[in-house]
Amino acid sequence: MTLLTLHDIQAASKRLAGNINHTPLLTSGLLDNWLGHEFYFKAENWQKVGAFKARGGYNTLAWLKEQNRLPEQVVAYSSGNHAQSVAWAAAQFGVKATIVMPQTVSKVKMLATKAYGANVVLASDRPAAEATAAKLANEGAYLIPPYDHDQVICGQGTVVLDALQQLPAPDAIFVPCGGGGLLSGSVIAAKGSNANIKVFGAEPVTANDAAQSLKTGQIVRLQQSPKTVADGVQTLSISERTFGYLKNSDGILEIEETDICYWTQWLTHLLKVTVEPTSALGMAAACQWLKTQKTPQKVLVVLSGGNLDQETRAKVWQQDYLGQQPSSALLT
Amino acid sequence: MTLLTLHDIQAASKRLAGNINHTPLLTSGLLDNWLGHEFYFKAENWQKVGAFKARGGYNTLAWLKEQNRLPEQVVAYSSGNHAQSVAWAAAQFGVKATIVMPQTVSKVKMLATKAYGANVVLASDRPAAEATAAKLANEGAYLIPPYDHDQVICGQGTVVLDALQQLPAPDAIFVPCGGGGLLSGSVIAAKGSNANIKVFGAEPVTANDAAQSLKTGQIVRLQQSPKTVADGVQTLSISERTFGYLKNSDGILEIEETDICYWTQWLTHLLKVTVEPTSALGMAAACQWLKTQKTPQKVLVVLSGGNLDQETRAKVWQQDYLGQQPSSALLT
Repeated sequence: MTLLTLHDIQAASKRLAGNINHTPLLTSGLLDNWLGHEFYFKAENWQKVGAFKARGGYNTLAWLKEQNRLPEQVVAYSSGNHAQSVAWAAAQFGVKATIVMPQTVSKVKMLATKAYGANVVLASDRPAAEATAAKLANEGAYLIPPYDHDQVICGQGTVVLDALQQLPAPDAIFVPCGGGGLLSGSVIAAKGSNANIKVFGAEPVTANDAAQSLKTGQIVRLQQSPKTVADGVQTLSISERTFGYLKNSDGILEIEETDICYWTQWLTHLLKVTVEPTSALGMAAACQWLKTQKTPQKVLVVLSGGNLDQETRAKVWQQDYLGQQPSSALLT
Repeated sequence: MTLLTLHDIQAASKRLAGNINHTPLLTSGLLDNWLGHEFYFKAENWQKVGAFKARGGYNTLAWLKEQNRLPEQVVAYSSGNHAQSVAWAAAQFGVKATIVMPQTVSKVKMLATKAYGANVVLASDRPAAEATAAKLANEGAYLIPPYDHDQVICGQGTVVLDALQQLPAPDAIFVPCGGGGLLSGSVIAAKGSNANIKVFGAEPVTANDAAQSLKTGQIVRLQQSPKTVADGVQTLSISERTFGYLKNSDGILEIEETDICYWTQWLTHLLKVTVEPTSALGMAAACQWLKTQKTPQKVLVVLSGGNLDQETRAKVWQQDYLGQQPSSALLT
């Protein structure tokens, strides 16, 4: 396995140019005043399909096309943003897409995937979905996995590459970590651009397999799908491939469910954007890290996406956190 | 009372230039495909204080300053976006602001108003708040009313003036109507620019005093604060001043509560923005009007603001409307 470098992310960036949205960096004067640091939010909730995942899906197909290996059909298993990414990207290249989803998938996510023209196949649960996808792959479809693929990682890495054009020298970057595709790409892009930039992952306490893996030095696999409102990071384990890159990160911070809800509410309120709870992980992690900092820092937080179904939204807003505004007391 | 013209809105626009946010026009490819028309959303949820109201407050103070009449203190009564507008605008001019709010006001709205530096006084209810404000006005503070003031109307009219720079020739414009300040300003700005552009107001069925007023030819006053999730348009009546301009509109469409919730959900989901239910009125009205149209139309919808408290959000998301995507069947 050849290690990816900044050069590979730059190549992905060229493939994506003009084919995805150029998302802005958002700021909030109130938030900066309250907390005494500068926060910049990369708004990937406005990316195609409403999540950064569009980058990995598109880059993989563009890379295949470059080598004249564009398949007739692609397949993916996912109940989330990866499903929409592959469905959308396949449509851009005129390739048929089959997405295998667990039958518990929310209707709005299934509708969106179908709206991009994909054929949706329902499976009884996640393992059954993976098995069905593997069967289709054996029959000739090209399987695009959610994170364990060099070109998926390179696509996701362009989020940070783009952001560094908009904000050349942040002190630290915070991204959510599920299977580790985004974090791997972020580490390669940031450290390759400027070795001084710190890069942290953020994981729910209840789904801390990546943090545990870094601590123990070997991949820890969760026994069952973790309970967390951050449904974008419910993967059971990272892969050997992503583990290698994660070792070069500055660590993975573990976030309580209440903090995920707190920051989903406040980012929704202050930035006036729709963010899914997974997007709040980075902000909560930034606050955890800032407790250790003595001087004002410039922080880049990746808002991973904005796709929420009704059930998730209800969980986020069950308690009202808007009655108590963020203050520097959070950082002590 | 001299009638306002496009010239007055243009003068307001000059006062606001550089002092407020230039908000984008948002679009959704999916939505346009589904409904067969072009929709453009003026994102005033990203305006200063999170609502178009910032325009009226700022313009009034800038106009007073132009005439060397800048007061030492301003006062306003409001439980909503007008409160934040006056608090914020006063701070920009170094003027003291007292905002009288009913004691039932939500904590997040009170916090925001205080965060802009205003002195918040609580009153037992809305009439008591108006009385307290009147008393302060008698003692020398300048009262900025929510809509019954020429310079407030001119400020609000700049929303449409701006939007017409971004989209020169929409077929029709849809804005929410409470006291009629925004609708008056929109009518003056749009009809003054191009007499062919239709301008409609949108009101909840449960708060249809303006629609009734236009139908009966005289101002109809509601007996009590109407029950609607669109808390930005709960005013009891329009004023003689705004009634005059509303007569030049193309009508006021009445919207059911379920449609307000439906479009708040779908605009939140498709545009990935935080919009308050009042913002959904325009979209629901556009759909009502489009039922009468035989050819594809270019429609401008003003998203009035993005300030929701927990209680309002819970009402909006009580039922799940995202399971059934908008289709052209809505327009038949």
